[in-house]
Amino acid sequence: MKNDADPLIVQEVSPRDGLQIEPTWVETVDKIALIDQLSLAGFSRIEAGSFVSPKAIPALRDGEQVFQGITRRPGIIYVALIPNLKGAVRAVGSRADELNLVMSASQTHNLANMRMRCEASLVAFGDVVSFAADHPVRLNGSIATTFGCPFEGKVDEDRVLQLVDAYLALGIQGVTLADTTGMANPRQVERLVKRVLERVGAHDLTLHFHNTRGLGLCNVLAAYEAGARRFDAALGGLGGCPFAPGASGNICTEDLVNLCDEVGIHTGIDLPHLLRMSRQLPALLGHELPGQVAKAGRNCDLHPAPGYIATL
Amino acid sequence: MKNDADPLIVQEVSPRDGLQIEPTWVETVDKIALIDQLSLAGFSRIEAGSFVSPKAIPALRDGEQVFQGITRRPGIIYVALIPNLKGAVRAVGSRADELNLVMSASQTHNLANMRMRCEASLVAFGDVVSFAADHPVRLNGSIATTFGCPFEGKVDEDRVLQLVDAYLALGIQGVTLADTTGMANPRQVERLVKRVLERVGAHDLTLHFHNTRGLGLCNVLAAYEAGARRFDAALGGLGGCPFAPGASGNICTEDLVNLCDEVGIHTGIDLPHLLRMSRQLPALLGHELPGQVAKAGRNCDLHPAPGYIATL
Repeated sequence: MKNDADPLIVQEVSPRDGLQIEPTWVETVDKIALIDQLSLAGFSRIEAGSFVSPKAIPALRDGEQVFQGITRRPGIIYVALIPNLKGAVRAVGSRADELNLVMSASQTHNLANMRMRCEASLVAFGDVVSFAADHPVRLNGSIATTFGCPFEGKVDEDRVLQLVDAYLALGIQGVTLADTTGMANPRQVERLVKRVLERVGAHDLTLHFHNTRGLGLCNVLAAYEAGARRFDAALGGLGGCPFAPGASGNICTEDLVNLCDEVGIHTGIDLPHLLRMSRQLPALLGHELPGQVAKAGRNCDLHPAPGYIATL
Repeated sequence: MKNDADPLIVQEVSPRDGLQIEPTWVETVDKIALIDQLSLAGFSRIEAGSFVSPKAIPALRDGEQVFQGITRRPGIIYVALIPNLKGAVRAVGSRADELNLVMSASQTHNLANMRMRCEASLVAFGDVVSFAADHPVRLNGSIATTFGCPFEGKVDEDRVLQLVDAYLALGIQGVTLADTTGMANPRQVERLVKRVLERVGAHDLTLHFHNTRGLGLCNVLAAYEAGARRFDAALGGLGGCPFAPGASGNICTEDLVNLCDEVGIHTGIDLPHLLRMSRQLPALLGHELPGQVAKAGRNCDLHPAPGYIATL
């Protein structure tokens, strides 16, 4: 492990990718409270919601109210996921700082998720770019199924690079490589991150890993060692995948921050604050969460020795 | 990641470290069936039980019957955990191929777990070595809390190396570095494994990681890259830690084998066979298990695309 002087930037995505598949409705006021608490934890980026069809993602149908209700702290970029121009207009109207567009590397996944072919997604992104040019908003493009598709299997790495180039050609500066259903492995990550970093600066590249097959943090370390510096993660490991009932979702923010604290990679994030937040999630959502450190505590949270050892 | 031509050896420990804290009694016949099924999966080593006080570990009080009931397959080493000479006599009487002795690097943990000081443990091991010299049995020495102690916190690496030297001086050839409560991090693992490999050959060194804080597989990769080649793991991620209720236990065998398959490290283990076995554990034990791949499937287990995409 090298370059540990370089901070690792965590973009917290629990309010968006975390909550979007929760079956329990989370009240707008609770979403706002979650984001406001996250804003106090030291994050520089929070994906705070999405502006998609309320029919497609009913759990996030209150995007406007959430973005308008949060207390914005200076220096934090509040990101909104959008699927198209209509979403972009709503997000800009709600003062999102950054628009995160998404399409899949795999044609079948794009058809299933966006209900259009990849080519049509790129055309629609052109409209978003034109609109955004007239507004003070950043753009990021996510590539879902970068590391594998649950319908098609392996995804050609050259295909991913072509989409990166297409984003850059459109004028979309930030790029997220997303392991949507947790199919990435560390060797693949190392290889692809190195290739993408030849095109995109480390400050513009985000890695989005899911822990579906238990490899999320391994993939973070592999990407970090290959030069990546920004990672999505969700409090408690919120989120999930409709194809893996019971399996983990996003990599867990507090587990990632604990890893960084233990190996000496700076994140600027307050782990005890995160742990207090994470431990409140089961009451909010009605189920346990996959995060480990919230259950086990930090290494420095020592236990009292059993009394009987005094008599030995 | 280098040296991928070198196989990674998985020692399956679910029958011992996995079952020992299960609150549900597992019938002797079911333990034997579990081990016999594991013997068909491609493992070269299985920790099949322990010979400790039935009062201390009631879940494993049938060690003799288990070792006498299993169908031994040629080439597989069936290991027994033992705490002392009495356990060694029982294990050898039950034809265990290898005795795994255990003490802790931390004095407080050894007092809590073995009810004696570390010095007394080493004296007792001398008796086991003398006894074993007259029998066809291998010896391995485990060092619990190698990477941290839940009572004392950080463990001095020189202390661990002194215990490795003490084992070697006694004539104990195999050494296991055990992360008993999941406190290890990849950088620490890399550093310590390199130092221990100056004393112990890679074929005699085992790493035993728990996934208590989500870092188990990260630590395996760090150890593998530092030259370690043998790892303990438990089917389904069985096991656990009394200090971390709800947190994961041992690293999960099928998740580890899936990682190796994906990155191209040879294990010789039949992953589909393991997944079938793991998926039967919840019915046997009455609860879900932390393993991920048993829930998510392998990457190559593709899903049918939704029917509506044909109409788009």
